[in-house]
Amino acid sequence: MKVLITGGGGFVGSRLARTLLARGQLNGQPITSLVLTDQVTAAPELGADPRVQDRTGPLLEQCAALREEPFDGVFHLASAVSGECELDFDLGMRSNLDSTRALLDSLRLAGVAAKKPTRLVFSSSVAVYGPDSSVAMPPLVADDTLPAPQTSYGVQKLVCEHLIADYTRKGFIDGRAARLMTVTVRPGKPNGAASSFFSGIIREPLAGVEAICPVNDQVSHPMSSPAKTVAGLIAIYEASREAFGGRLAMNLPALNVRVCDMLDALEEVAGSAVRARVRFERDDRIAGIVANWPTGATATRAAKLGLKADESFADIIRQYIADCAKSPNADRALKGMAH
Amino acid sequence: MKVLITGGGGFVGSRLARTLLARGQLNGQPITSLVLTDQVTAAPELGADPRVQDRTGPLLEQCAALREEPFDGVFHLASAVSGECELDFDLGMRSNLDSTRALLDSLRLAGVAAKKPTRLVFSSSVAVYGPDSSVAMPPLVADDTLPAPQTSYGVQKLVCEHLIADYTRKGFIDGRAARLMTVTVRPGKPNGAASSFFSGIIREPLAGVEAICPVNDQVSHPMSSPAKTVAGLIAIYEASREAFGGRLAMNLPALNVRVCDMLDALEEVAGSAVRARVRFERDDRIAGIVANWPTGATATRAAKLGLKADESFADIIRQYIADCAKSPNADRALKGMAH
Repeated sequence: MKVLITGGGGFVGSRLARTLLARGQLNGQPITSLVLTDQVTAAPELGADPRVQDRTGPLLEQCAALREEPFDGVFHLASAVSGECELDFDLGMRSNLDSTRALLDSLRLAGVAAKKPTRLVFSSSVAVYGPDSSVAMPPLVADDTLPAPQTSYGVQKLVCEHLIADYTRKGFIDGRAARLMTVTVRPGKPNGAASSFFSGIIREPLAGVEAICPVNDQVSHPMSSPAKTVAGLIAIYEASREAFGGRLAMNLPALNVRVCDMLDALEEVAGSAVRARVRFERDDRIAGIVANWPTGATATRAAKLGLKADESFADIIRQYIADCAKSPNADRALKGMAH
Repeated sequence: MKVLITGGGGFVGSRLARTLLARGQLNGQPITSLVLTDQVTAAPELGADPRVQDRTGPLLEQCAALREEPFDGVFHLASAVSGECELDFDLGMRSNLDSTRALLDSLRLAGVAAKKPTRLVFSSSVAVYGPDSSVAMPPLVADDTLPAPQTSYGVQKLVCEHLIADYTRKGFIDGRAARLMTVTVRPGKPNGAASSFFSGIIREPLAGVEAICPVNDQVSHPMSSPAKTVAGLIAIYEASREAFGGRLAMNLPALNVRVCDMLDALEEVAGSAVRARVRFERDDRIAGIVANWPTGATATRAAKLGLKADESFADIIRQYIADCAKSPNADRALKGMAH
């Protein structure tokens, strides 16, 4: 089978690609071709796999060609992140809304020509939730909580969820939207996402670098490790429509933790000297955005698919350390650890 | 002040235009110019008013020019109806989504140039609600009920609600989305809306013509008279942002009635011979669509603005008869009445 990952050069996209290549199959079908699209080049080890085609460039510009190229399955992860979309409204609309619309229209045409709707998993986000002055946000957001996005990114994700639901209802695609929790611990450098510090306060201290936490330590948030997130995307792809249940988006499982719990876990795994590298310095802009985010999430529908949250934040940190240990950057990434 | 009504040639748009011209002001400002855009020409008496400019043609094509033409207020009512959007998906996306997006972008540019966000009222619809296999629909849908649209029309309305909320959050416009209930009794001929029969079973018998009801008489639905609907749009325009409450869409008040209640009211107002002109003949396509619609609605936020539903369906019928009596078609429209 032929699979497309948009955003295949990104962190979650790369990990999904590695996982799919290692499995060799999806839903019981051997993966013979894996196309990665992204603004950035795919990771070298992915590009070296004979099954992989790496296509660099804006998704919007690549969509027209996709009309003539049928795929069996698509993971649509490409997205401008929340911080970028707040700073540049038009970028967000183009990258997140127009590109998705163009992708859906291409898949529709290709699917009609192939007489089979293409299966698509879309990475929506917990950012669709928020408080509005007309409606409170519950402490734990559920699959059926009323979305009230507080950012352009959240609005664009929610709009795409509903377009995907309608293209699915019409039989143009077989779409499933999964709301990703905040994926932690992300490697590399801080990105434009307002949630970037949730990774930073773990990643930087492990690398021996001071990290600044822009919110207080009682802030709670729904998190997921990269491995659990990728496992969720694959399980949602492989679910039958009946098991997926309806056309509305589904929450992926979350571990709901406070910043202080995260730092306790960091100390447990890496010691008090590492934890001591986190300094609290409030950033009103970030704290204001985060104040509108859910403090936790439930995932009833995902649980019915057998999906579970990470067991503890210490597990999430251990997963990050194990991943780093396998990478060429291991020395630098884990420089702050005593052993 | 200068006001734009998109869909100003339609039934609700024309009535809103007449009401605004008769009031002469909106939010205390004299209306000096009223621009009506629509695919069809404005009603002759509207076109004859010196304050009115009638612009016929697709809204999408008119939007570019609107960038250079600031308006103080906009009522965005233009829309392809539900039945049309089900039959022609691309028409619905173009008329309801692309046109709204183009309008918002034009208003944004004009508003930035004028250093004042344009106030906009958008006519969304009770069609945003529905059941999904993952979530039940309550018997009465409320402002904060989770939307799960079951038609492309409903999806497009919901998507526009959220885009308007985000353009408002960004300060590009001052937008307010109002979910209209099914407006009854519509004059004229049946249109492509699946809800068309709700007017037909009153209108045709009054004109001495047999009407077919495609659903059983226990079907319940949230209704509103044209006068209450127009009053709701104006009140939402005139509300302060604080009184509107939040950025999410607001239900307009509904009279929740069953088909049998409607026919009892018809008999009360016009006699049993008129009622006898309604024949029940199930249409599976229509009945299937209607089965996914709410059986009633509440409007808590609208009530806080002082808005009320019609008192009875007999009142709604009397309003229709009084409107017909003033029209040049009175003889034909009320031919079926005994007096």
